[in-house]
Amino acid sequence: MTKAGAPIAVSMGEPAGIGPDLILTLFADRAGLDLPPLVVYGHGDFLAARARRLGLDIVLASVKSPDDAARVDGLAVIETGGEFDDTPGAVQPQSAKSVIEAIARAVADCRAGRCRALVTAPINKAALYAHGFAYPGHTEYLAALCADGGTAPRPVMMLAHEGLRVVPLTIHEPLASVAGLVTEALIVQTVRIVAMDLRQRFGIAAPKIGVAGLNPHAGENATIGSEERDIIAPAIAALKGEGIEVSGPYPADTLFFPPHWRQYDCVVAMYHDQALIPVKTLAFDAGVNVTLGLPIIRTSPDHGTAFDLAGTGRASGKSLLAAIRLADVLSART
Amino acid sequence: MTKAGAPIAVSMGEPAGIGPDLILTLFADRAGLDLPPLVVYGHGDFLAARARRLGLDIVLASVKSPDDAARVDGLAVIETGGEFDDTPGAVQPQSAKSVIEAIARAVADCRAGRCRALVTAPINKAALYAHGFAYPGHTEYLAALCADGGTAPRPVMMLAHEGLRVVPLTIHEPLASVAGLVTEALIVQTVRIVAMDLRQRFGIAAPKIGVAGLNPHAGENATIGSEERDIIAPAIAALKGEGIEVSGPYPADTLFFPPHWRQYDCVVAMYHDQALIPVKTLAFDAGVNVTLGLPIIRTSPDHGTAFDLAGTGRASGKSLLAAIRLADVLSART
Repeated sequence: MTKAGAPIAVSMGEPAGIGPDLILTLFADRAGLDLPPLVVYGHGDFLAARARRLGLDIVLASVKSPDDAARVDGLAVIETGGEFDDTPGAVQPQSAKSVIEAIARAVADCRAGRCRALVTAPINKAALYAHGFAYPGHTEYLAALCADGGTAPRPVMMLAHEGLRVVPLTIHEPLASVAGLVTEALIVQTVRIVAMDLRQRFGIAAPKIGVAGLNPHAGENATIGSEERDIIAPAIAALKGEGIEVSGPYPADTLFFPPHWRQYDCVVAMYHDQALIPVKTLAFDAGVNVTLGLPIIRTSPDHGTAFDLAGTGRASGKSLLAAIRLADVLSART
Repeated sequence: MTKAGAPIAVSMGEPAGIGPDLILTLFADRAGLDLPPLVVYGHGDFLAARARRLGLDIVLASVKSPDDAARVDGLAVIETGGEFDDTPGAVQPQSAKSVIEAIARAVADCRAGRCRALVTAPINKAALYAHGFAYPGHTEYLAALCADGGTAPRPVMMLAHEGLRVVPLTIHEPLASVAGLVTEALIVQTVRIVAMDLRQRFGIAAPKIGVAGLNPHAGENATIGSEERDIIAPAIAALKGEGIEVSGPYPADTLFFPPHWRQYDCVVAMYHDQALIPVKTLAFDAGVNVTLGLPIIRTSPDHGTAFDLAGTGRASGKSLLAAIRLADVLSART
């Protein structure tokens, strides 16, 4: 059970990137934004230096526990240690340990009910690999942290922007590999998780899910590829048999015309660009990445570290703000 | 040379589909639409029956040559013969010959300068195959008609909506085949045709062309597929060496955010859905298909026969109208 009034955990992300800028800027603007209580997992001295660079008048308050966040005036920080400076755009290898520690401690506090959701600022995977980080990305690390020494849950990535929610079945895979990865089992597992989280987290009693085809025109009666007939349609039939309201496969190009996707609470796309192109075309800097299938609520902005903008004050905080708001809404339901 | 005042040729397309409906409806509304002179290649009695079904008060005037189109009051029709009835949604095999003949005669009249551009209404390929039609689609047939017994020109498909112009490098291919079809030679040939037609047809003196990557995040430094490094980047370098203003490969998901694509006169995408998703997301029923690389100007609406809407009067003519207007603009320049 999450404690009443528990804050939302925000992991600082890569110090050389724009994550710290956006966290600090949103906090500085908190009065107008009506932000929920936050606690940042990161490095207080570094954050203070970045705030000075950005000309922000912010008090940072180190706290021992998220329980103390509500009692301080400034931005509450759980210190994850390390010795590194404010060097926008230039990764310092010695910051990696602190970045990883921030995620781990934030997840532990969410699982213990001391925070009610996790919002992660972008990390730089290459910098973390050098420090022995053994996961393909943020999301897989979160799943491993939730494994309790057993099997990690299967995280499912959703992109959300207002009513548009899209889940890519496969994510960071070369296009040449995608068709081989689309299996009936993967579709069934993924749609089950989507349906469950739409009910439990999003509060949609009987969610409607639309599934895209893999090939142009969804294969046009198996004349342009046969995966729709041989894999996707049988998976949809099996899911309907479980009582899930799912339909398709639909041609991906017409599925994302707004009057079409609005018929579904979520669209399941077959691969990265098929899912991300419509979201970024319609909502470039305001989309949110939500991880389904975990025991904790996790959202993140749908952008990277943007080294060229770090420390400049020019990065848009729209997506981080949307991620915080969605984490707030989702955690209010549980 | 095209004759002064030559009309735009419109091929009727599949009689069981919505093509005839849209042609007739636009013509009925011509006063408010300021349409350029048109001549329809098709079947006058059939069109008259469809007009009656739709409750349209139109006079159809059979003419022997496009030269006569301007001299008649009603909708000028070049008769392509055949015996078939007005049966919306139900294909009549005996109409295939007339459908094919309409395209062939319209192309011949464009090439002879008697028409200044061709707008094609949608066909039903399956119906034409049964009649011995030997082409994968409309566009390939047009290219063959322009071959003069020699090698057919290589047609390049462009989707256009206002300032957004997108060319898919590969078109109706199974997704599993796409990566294998992306070659340096194909990219170079395609971009050359795009650049030439943007200059000559669209009147853009120094066109800027953006090229999408194939893989998520354009391969993220060859960690998610290597085609960007090994194939697309070398093709772009070769094209720059020819003086073409081309850049990329760019991640496809962020390329279609409007402020990004607006930097380019045309975007070259690697495959069907990568190109079509943004166009249909932004402009579902108003996009135009333009064929580049042919000796004639050809546009078409960006939709199919929509059998379920034929004869109902409910189909949207926006795309056909946009196709006629674009054919008018492009042919005014040549």
